[in-house]
Amino acid sequence: MTSSEYTLDLCDRIAAHTDVPGTITRTFLSRATHAVHALLRAEMEALGMTVRTDSAGNVRGIYPAVTVDAPILLTGSHIDTVPDAGRYDGILGVALPIALIRALDGKRLPYAIEIIAFSEEEGVRFSLPFIGSRALIGDFTPEDLARPDADGISIAQAIRNFGLDPDGLSDALLTPGTFAFFEAHIEQGPVLEALNLPLGVVTTIIGQSRLGLTFHGQANHAGTTPMSFRKDALAGAAQWITEVEAYPSTDPELLATVGSIQASPGAANVIPGAVTVSLDVRHPSNDARLNAVGALVAKAEACAQSRGLTLTTVDRGAQGSVPMDANLRKALSTAAAPYAPHAMPSGAGHDAMILARKLPATMLFLRTPGGLSHHPNESVSGEDIEAAITTGLRFLHSLQPIWQ
Amino acid sequence: MTSSEYTLDLCDRIAAHTDVPGTITRTFLSRATHAVHALLRAEMEALGMTVRTDSAGNVRGIYPAVTVDAPILLTGSHIDTVPDAGRYDGILGVALPIALIRALDGKRLPYAIEIIAFSEEEGVRFSLPFIGSRALIGDFTPEDLARPDADGISIAQAIRNFGLDPDGLSDALLTPGTFAFFEAHIEQGPVLEALNLPLGVVTTIIGQSRLGLTFHGQANHAGTTPMSFRKDALAGAAQWITEVEAYPSTDPELLATVGSIQASPGAANVIPGAVTVSLDVRHPSNDARLNAVGALVAKAEACAQSRGLTLTTVDRGAQGSVPMDANLRKALSTAAAPYAPHAMPSGAGHDAMILARKLPATMLFLRTPGGLSHHPNESVSGEDIEAAITTGLRFLHSLQPIWQ
Repeated sequence: MTSSEYTLDLCDRIAAHTDVPGTITRTFLSRATHAVHALLRAEMEALGMTVRTDSAGNVRGIYPAVTVDAPILLTGSHIDTVPDAGRYDGILGVALPIALIRALDGKRLPYAIEIIAFSEEEGVRFSLPFIGSRALIGDFTPEDLARPDADGISIAQAIRNFGLDPDGLSDALLTPGTFAFFEAHIEQGPVLEALNLPLGVVTTIIGQSRLGLTFHGQANHAGTTPMSFRKDALAGAAQWITEVEAYPSTDPELLATVGSIQASPGAANVIPGAVTVSLDVRHPSNDARLNAVGALVAKAEACAQSRGLTLTTVDRGAQGSVPMDANLRKALSTAAAPYAPHAMPSGAGHDAMILARKLPATMLFLRTPGGLSHHPNESVSGEDIEAAITTGLRFLHSLQPIWQ
Repeated sequence: MTSSEYTLDLCDRIAAHTDVPGTITRTFLSRATHAVHALLRAEMEALGMTVRTDSAGNVRGIYPAVTVDAPILLTGSHIDTVPDAGRYDGILGVALPIALIRALDGKRLPYAIEIIAFSEEEGVRFSLPFIGSRALIGDFTPEDLARPDADGISIAQAIRNFGLDPDGLSDALLTPGTFAFFEAHIEQGPVLEALNLPLGVVTTIIGQSRLGLTFHGQANHAGTTPMSFRKDALAGAAQWITEVEAYPSTDPELLATVGSIQASPGAANVIPGAVTVSLDVRHPSNDARLNAVGALVAKAEACAQSRGLTLTTVDRGAQGSVPMDANLRKALSTAAAPYAPHAMPSGAGHDAMILARKLPATMLFLRTPGGLSHHPNESVSGEDIEAAITTGLRFLHSLQPIWQ
C-alpha cells in the first residue's frame, strides 16, 4: 500500500467503529471509542512506538528520536465526531502522522514524535469542546469535570466509566520537552477547491463573537390587524438579516452568519411578537471583528427603533484570533512549496488553537471536495493525501534547524 | 343590574369554569364545559326559555314568539376558548343575546329567538375549527368524526364521553323555520378603537389563503465558508419576508403575514440549508387575494433564483370571502345608527361564516381595547356593551318587516 492508500484505509477502519450503527458517530469516551483506541494502539505499536492513554482519554504514541531526552514534536488531531459525521474531520490528522512514521520506515530523527489522538474536540456530548487538548495545557476546572451530559453523567464519571482516573489528569499535561505542535486537517471549506490547490497553510485561527438578539414586537391576529397597526418582530428581524448578509461585502475576510431563528408564538395566523436570532461574526483581526459586531448590533437597534420594536441582546461568548507560529508556518510552506500551498485563515476552531497557548503551533489544510464536512459524504482525495505526506516528510526533515 | 352589568357578570361566571386552573381554557366538550352548560341552561330557563343540548354539544335555548310555528331567529357564538384565553371571544356573543332576552322582560316578538352556544369554534382540540356550527349545516363526514385529538380520542368518542350520542347528530341541524343568524363578537382588532367607535357592522368575512414555502440552499460551516460561496436559505427567506411585508402598501385591504419560520439545521455556527415559512394572505376580494398570492410566490421564486436557492411551496388551504347578508346588514346598521357603526370586513373566521352557507347572516363587532384578544387581558367596556344591547333591541324590533 502507498502512504495515501494506507491513510485512507486507516480512516476507513476507524470509521467502522460507531456509537450509532449506519452512521459515523463517536462522542467523548463513548463505547465505540474503546475499539478505536485498540486499533490506534496496535497500529502505532507495530511501528515501534510506545503507546499510552492519558486520563483525559487521549491516546499518545511516542516514536523515539535518535537520542534519548531529545525534544518532542507533538502532532495529531481528534477522534470524536459530530453525529452522522464523515470519516476525515479530525481522524485524518491522526491517521496521516501514523502514515508519516510508517513512511520513515524506521529512520529516527533528532527529535521524538508524539502522535496524539485527542479524545474530544467537537463539544457534542458535554456542549464543551476541546476536552482532549485542554487537558494538555491544564485548562480544566473542577466545574468542568462536574459538567453533566444529557444523561446527567459528569465528565469525571465518563472518564471513570471508560476505565480511566479523573484524579490523575496531570498525566495528560504536555510531555516535558515538547517544542511544537503540528496538526493536519481537512479544510472543511470550499476555498482550496476553488483555487484548484491541494494544500493550505493556516495563518491564523480566526476569532469569533457569538450573540443572541431578540426583536420584541406585539403578537396579534393576522386577520384582524391591518398592516399599518402591526409591530411584526419577524419582519424587523428579516430586514436586519438582509443587512447582516450585505455587511461583509466591504471586507472579504469578514464572516457574519445568522444560523438560528425562533419566532414566537410561531403560528401561521399570528403576527410574530418576538423573534430571537443568533449572530456569529468571525474575522482574522480582533479589531475588525469587534467593529463589525458593534456595527451589526447598531443596525439591529436602528431597525427595531424604526419599527416600534425593542431589541435585547445577549453575549454568548467570544474568542480572539489565534495566529499560528510564524517560523513553523514558514517551514511548512517551504515543505509544501511544490504544491503552491495557499496561505489562509482557519474559520473553524481546532485543537491547534488550544495548544498554541503553550507551544508554537502550525496547521496544514487539505482540500475538501465541495467544501463538504460534518456530513457522511465528506471526502479527501488520495492525490491530496499523497501531497500532504510528501509535505509532511519534508517538514519533519526540515524541522531540525529550528529547534536546535 | 343593568343589561351591561348582567352581561359582564355572566361572562365572568362562565370564565370561572376552566380546564386549566389559573387560566381560561376550555376545549371542545372538556370537563369544564359541563358546568358552563348547566350555567347557561339555568340562566335561559329562568328567562322562560326551553333549553336542550344537541348531539354536537351545542346548548340551544328557544324563546317563544307570540304565535306558535313562527319563524326563528338564530343568534349566538361559541363557548370554547384558545388556551389561556380572555373571557369575551365567543362568550360575549352568547351572553349578550341572553341579556337581550332579559331586557325584553317577557315581551314576545312575532318570531322566536333561538340562542345557541356553539360547542367548538377555535379548532384547538382537534385542529378542526367550527365543529359546533358545522353540525348545524350538516357539514360533517365520518372522517371528521373519526379525527383524533392529541390523546387519540376521536370527535365521536369525545361526544360520547360527554354523555351525548354522535349517531344522533341530525338533532343538531338548523331548527326548521330558522330565517336568519345574528352573531355579536368582539372585533379582536384595533380598528374601532382607532376610530373611537364602539360598534362595527361586518360587511364580509374575508377570504384567506395559507401556504408553506421552503427555501432550499446549502448548509455549511459559518467559519469556513466565505460569504461569496454561500447559499444561505435564511438570508433568502429574510429578503422575501421584507418583500411580503411591503407588498400590501398598494392595497390597504390586503393582509400578508409570515407567522412561522423554521431554519434547518438551526445551529448558530451553521449556515441554514433550508428555511420553511408560512404565508397567510387575506383580502375581502377573492380575486385580489389570489392575485396577491401569485405575486408573492413569484417574488419568492425570483428571490430564490437570484441566490442559487430553490423553492418549494405547499398549499395549506384557502377559503373564499363570505359576504354578510345585505338586508340584515342594513337593518343592523340602521339599528346601530346612534353609534355611527363602522362598516368593516372581519379578518377572522367566525361561526357566522359557516351559517352563511345556509342562512342570511349578520355580525355586530364590539370595540376591543388595544385590539387585544386570545389573551387573559382581553376586555370590552360596559358602555360598548350597553351600545350593543341598545342596538340589538332596536335590531330585534326592526326585523319583523324583513321576513314577513
